[in-house]
Amino acid sequence: MTDNARPPVTVIGLGDMGRALAGALLDAGHPTTVWNRTASRADALAARGAAVAATPAEAVAASPLVIVCLLDDGTVRKVLEPAAGALDGRTLVNLTNGTPRQARETAAWAAGQGAQYVDGGIMAVPPMIGRPEALVLYSGSPAAFAAHEATLGALGAARHLGADPGLAALYDVALLSAMYGMFGGFLHAVALTRSEKVPAAEFTPLVVAWLGAMMESLPAMAEAVDSGDHPATGSNLRMQATAYVNLLEAARDQGVGTELMEPMRALLDRAVAAGHGDDGLSSLVDLLRTAPADGPAPQR
Amino acid sequence: MTDNARPPVTVIGLGDMGRALAGALLDAGHPTTVWNRTASRADALAARGAAVAATPAEAVAASPLVIVCLLDDGTVRKVLEPAAGALDGRTLVNLTNGTPRQARETAAWAAGQGAQYVDGGIMAVPPMIGRPEALVLYSGSPAAFAAHEATLGALGAARHLGADPGLAALYDVALLSAMYGMFGGFLHAVALTRSEKVPAAEFTPLVVAWLGAMMESLPAMAEAVDSGDHPATGSNLRMQATAYVNLLEAARDQGVGTELMEPMRALLDRAVAAGHGDDGLSSLVDLLRTAPADGPAPQR
Ligand SMILES: NC(=O)c1ccc[n+]([C@@H]2O[C@H](COP(=O)([O-])OP(=O)(O)OC[C@H]3O[C@@H](n4cnc5c(N)ncnc54)[C@H](OP(=O)(O)O)[C@@H]3O)[C@@H](O)[C@H]2O)c1
Ligand SMILES: NC(=O)c1ccc[n+]([C@@H]2O[C@H](COP(=O)([O-])OP(=O)(O)OC[C@H]3O[C@@H](n4cnc5c(N)ncnc54)[C@H](OP(=O)(O)O)[C@@H]3O)[C@@H](O)[C@H]2O)c1
Repeated sequence: MTDNARPPVTVIGLGDMGRALAGALLDAGHPTTVWNRTASRADALAARGAAVAATPAEAVAASPLVIVCLLDDGTVRKVLEPAAGALDGRTLVNLTNGTPRQARETAAWAAGQGAQYVDGGIMAVPPMIGRPEALVLYSGSPAAFAAHEATLGALGAARHLGADPGLAALYDVALLSAMYGMFGGFLHAVALTRSEKVPAAEFTPLVVAWLGAMMESLPAMAEAVDSGDHPATGSNLRMQATAYVNLLEAARDQGVGTELMEPMRALLDRAVAAGHGDDGLSSLVDLLRTAPADGPAPQR
Repeated sequence: MTDNARPPVTVIGLGDMGRALAGALLDAGHPTTVWNRTASRADALAARGAAVAATPAEAVAASPLVIVCLLDDGTVRKVLEPAAGALDGRTLVNLTNGTPRQARETAAWAAGQGAQYVDGGIMAVPPMIGRPEALVLYSGSPAAFAAHEATLGALGAARHLGADPGLAALYDVALLSAMYGMFGGFLHAVALTRSEKVPAAEFTPLVVAWLGAMMESLPAMAEAVDSGDHPATGSNLRMQATAYVNLLEAARDQGVGTELMEPMRALLDRAVAAGHGDDGLSSLVDLLRTAPADGPAPQR
């Protein structure tokens, strides 16, 4: 290939996300080979110049860089195992959502097939792919990441977290957890306001402004988590546990289910009962543990 | 009083929030009378010029505008009932956190004492009080709010939501629910990352950027809630329910408690089982109901 030619890439899995990934690679000028169980999902990409492989093995053989984006880890194994013989010397970049353990296991399996392995977590929805706002977190082989960084940059902002293949999945599940917490709180909030006929569209700008203001306290909470010292800074846990009861009582009065909000109440009550009533909210992190402590120990 | 003189105000309750409120009123030049059960909490305010009342009745009698900020609704009744005789002709602004029902009941009680009533929800922490970033939501008597709007403006940005005294509490509990959802998700996220020794301070800028990006989808979710039509826009619920299992499994692998994250899984699974697997996340709002529907009905 000439200096200007883009290296070829294979994309396996053409769901909502896989189609966005393949589309961005085509947009960036990469010769792109695709495979999907339901072949018709490749049609629009083929019309834009993608080569459609008949089998996963053929797709793997087509490019030195193979990107996989399937429903889950079980699907990845099911699709790739018959193609294992073609993986030798390839770089496998797995953008399927999974756990750190799954990433480490797939890395070990890929190494057994002679492939370099990079795991990834896509912190974006499909319409964002190909734009710098789309963050994709990677971990695993630093050499393989470096070799393909420019290509991966066509998908969004690429950030390599380290050689441990489990790191990207760790960050991914952590960020998704934070997102689902926010979305769950939002949905509960609009369930409350619509119970009094307030349109969600009228209420939401207030939520956005309020969450934006409250997000400013996250760095201080992070500092508290790291130091193990949890100052109340004007909002003590005893007061919060008392006010929290109102959240639940108001929901019950309004006919709104409290299931998303109950576990936080239990944590607040446990923290106060354990003598942390004068602490701040960040001290709850020490209650979210089922195994021996590996962060800073609780302070009292 | 002259044109420039500020009207006198009483503040009852000098916890973290009450002290901030009284301090902002003093800063704005209002003759300020205060009362608190634990008298010593008034000392610093007295040194700045506040008059310290010996009883709640004396505090109520001192000013036409009486602001109350106590721990909870029960405390408000306990403190104000002995002072009821002094309330006639006063305006009572209750900034204590509570439910819509409590606000309506206290409004009726206050009316019985001949007082005008305005309920409020403080959407700020104490250090923000007195600055325009501090939003205080009010509802109840429009005339009383209008009469005291300038004074209340000394506490932060004042917004009157309507004549129903329960509205401010409704918005308040809804916004707090959204906040606790976000904070809970954040604490779970840092519990996960610190299980692999990633400092929270290192991880948090990513969370802030990510939540900021995801917040941009809230207006579209609000529109979906209002219309009852919940498009997946690239992230279908079936895929989300599958990925959500990874969030829980990763937490268990890392020794992190899953209690804050379990209820959302149950909702996702119920939504998929009910045939909403091709919908978007906003459709979960229809599951957060314990009473007959008052928003748009589920679509299928
Ligand atoms: N969409 C997003 O917003 C988003 C964001 C970040 C990460 N992700 C992750 O990206 C991955 C793909 O998500 P998506 O949104 O593209 O999901 P999707 O639209 O539901 O697509 C699922 C993909 O998996 C394939 N698949 C499922 N079961 C299969 C099986 N038994 N054998 C072979 N192929 C199978 C599907 O093939 P068929 O077409 O034949 O069904 C399709 O290619 C998931 O891990 C998801 O968590 C998605
Ligand atoms: N702090 C915040 O970030 C914040 C934000 C928004 C809204 N709020 C709301 O503002 C209100 C006050 O919060 P805060 O942070 O000031 O709480 P706080 O620091 O815990 O103060 C509680 C106040 O209630 C009084 N009190 C408690 N039990 C009493 C009793 N049995 N009799 C008489 N007085 C009693 C306390 O008096 P003593 O001093 O004698 O104990 C103190 O004045 C709460 O409803 C809270 O939800 C607070």
